[in-house]
Amino acid sequence: MADYDLYYWPVPFRGQFIRAILTFAGKTWREQDADAIGQIMGVAPGKQPIPFMGPPVLIDHAHGFAVAQMPAIALYLGETLDLLPATPQARALTAKVVNDANDVLDDMTRDGGSQMWDDDSWRAFLPRLQRWMTIWDATGARHGLTLTDGFLLGAHQPGVADIVTATLWATMGDRFPDLAAMLRQTAPGIAALTRRMQAWPTLARLSRESRETYGDSWCGGQIEASLRRVLKQDEKHHSGAQ
Amino acid sequence: MADYDLYYWPVPFRGQFIRAILTFAGKTWREQDADAIGQIMGVAPGKQPIPFMGPPVLIDHAHGFAVAQMPAIALYLGETLDLLPATPQARALTAKVVNDANDVLDDMTRDGGSQMWDDDSWRAFLPRLQRWMTIWDATGARHGLTLTDGFLLGAHQPGVADIVTATLWATMGDRFPDLAAMLRQTAPGIAALTRRMQAWPTLARLSRESRETYGDSWCGGQIEASLRRVLKQDEKHHSGAQ
Repeated sequence: MADYDLYYWPVPFRGQFIRAILTFAGKTWREQDADAIGQIMGVAPGKQPIPFMGPPVLIDHAHGFAVAQMPAIALYLGETLDLLPATPQARALTAKVVNDANDVLDDMTRDGGSQMWDDDSWRAFLPRLQRWMTIWDATGARHGLTLTDGFLLGAHQPGVADIVTATLWATMGDRFPDLAAMLRQTAPGIAALTRRMQAWPTLARLSRESRETYGDSWCGGQIEASLRRVLKQDEKHHSGAQ
Repeated sequence: MADYDLYYWPVPFRGQFIRAILTFAGKTWREQDADAIGQIMGVAPGKQPIPFMGPPVLIDHAHGFAVAQMPAIALYLGETLDLLPATPQARALTAKVVNDANDVLDDMTRDGGSQMWDDDSWRAFLPRLQRWMTIWDATGARHGLTLTDGFLLGAHQPGVADIVTATLWATMGDRFPDLAAMLRQTAPGIAALTRRMQAWPTLARLSRESRETYGDSWCGGQIEASLRRVLKQDEKHHSGAQ
């Protein structure tokens, strides 16, 4: 039996942070599919494993414990798998980074696809995306991150903040090369940290396997299609789809 | 000198969770005004007290430490002011509840006012708001919360999860009586917990003072005006404004 069950849609997006932390810590999990998610979302909250609005949901079999909300799951795994820093301040910065990453995903999808991207709205959004990149870069710089060495919050080993950072920018950059180029230019220290983290054998393997399983998908749905349109990737998308 | 500086707009909304935790713990803070917020938002992330996208930002003078993101601030205060539960699982549920509360605010404002409410969109949203209430109710029920006794996660004393829960529903219900009535009907245990928490002298005082300082305001702006329109509170709003 796997250590955990993860309920998340068959795309990287918000679930990928959880997959990356589990993978990095050498843990196994069973992916619950869209049918299983539909099933637990269709019942009353009192009958759910944890009363929740939307995935991801993680079930920790060793502790008979279920929890929802990506940032809460990431911090829970960080605490129980020894991937959080030692001081309350550095732990708070980890929580801040994880919630920032969650917000970037909301921004990139216009809050779950409540509106679609067009050229005008995308152009108006780009300075904000660059601002996010600069926020990450300034965070690393403040903690001694360089182009060749260091971690986001100044620790001597990678933690949840580094795994989440690398997963955010690597997954997005891998699907949207223009955004990878923007990161290299806007936040070179974070682009370098992302590369170093993704070279870790565990994260490299997850990246390969996710590519095999999910193809080019990032967030999925119509909002991803509109994102590809404004990034002029329609053709690449279709030729790359399996 | 106050223990903390809080940068947040002059409305309750997302900042009220932080004010409530500080108040409950007997801490003092200085409210930084909209001008001060504009100033730290207008500089490059490398020059900000903490590189951040939007308020709230908290500065903890005792530790020379700044942090952004409401859930991260709430958990940081919870940890350093002894308002978090003892087990990693209960701490994770606290983080889950705080992120849920953050999501409810996003839902209620259509993600920061990216679209305005009209009768149709509000009617379509109501089942989701009731679902949030039911999620809270089921969470309390699972941990032994009753109409007269107990706390959200089964602790013997209030913690961040209870303060955040009470602040969310009391602040909203105080400004929008229809929603308070809906909470009493949909989630009676949570309505009762909210009343018990708000009767705490510290929280009762904050509630009075916020009412004096911010009047009827909840989130502010055009989105609040559209919320009042769909809730048919235009008249009450104007007669209540100072």
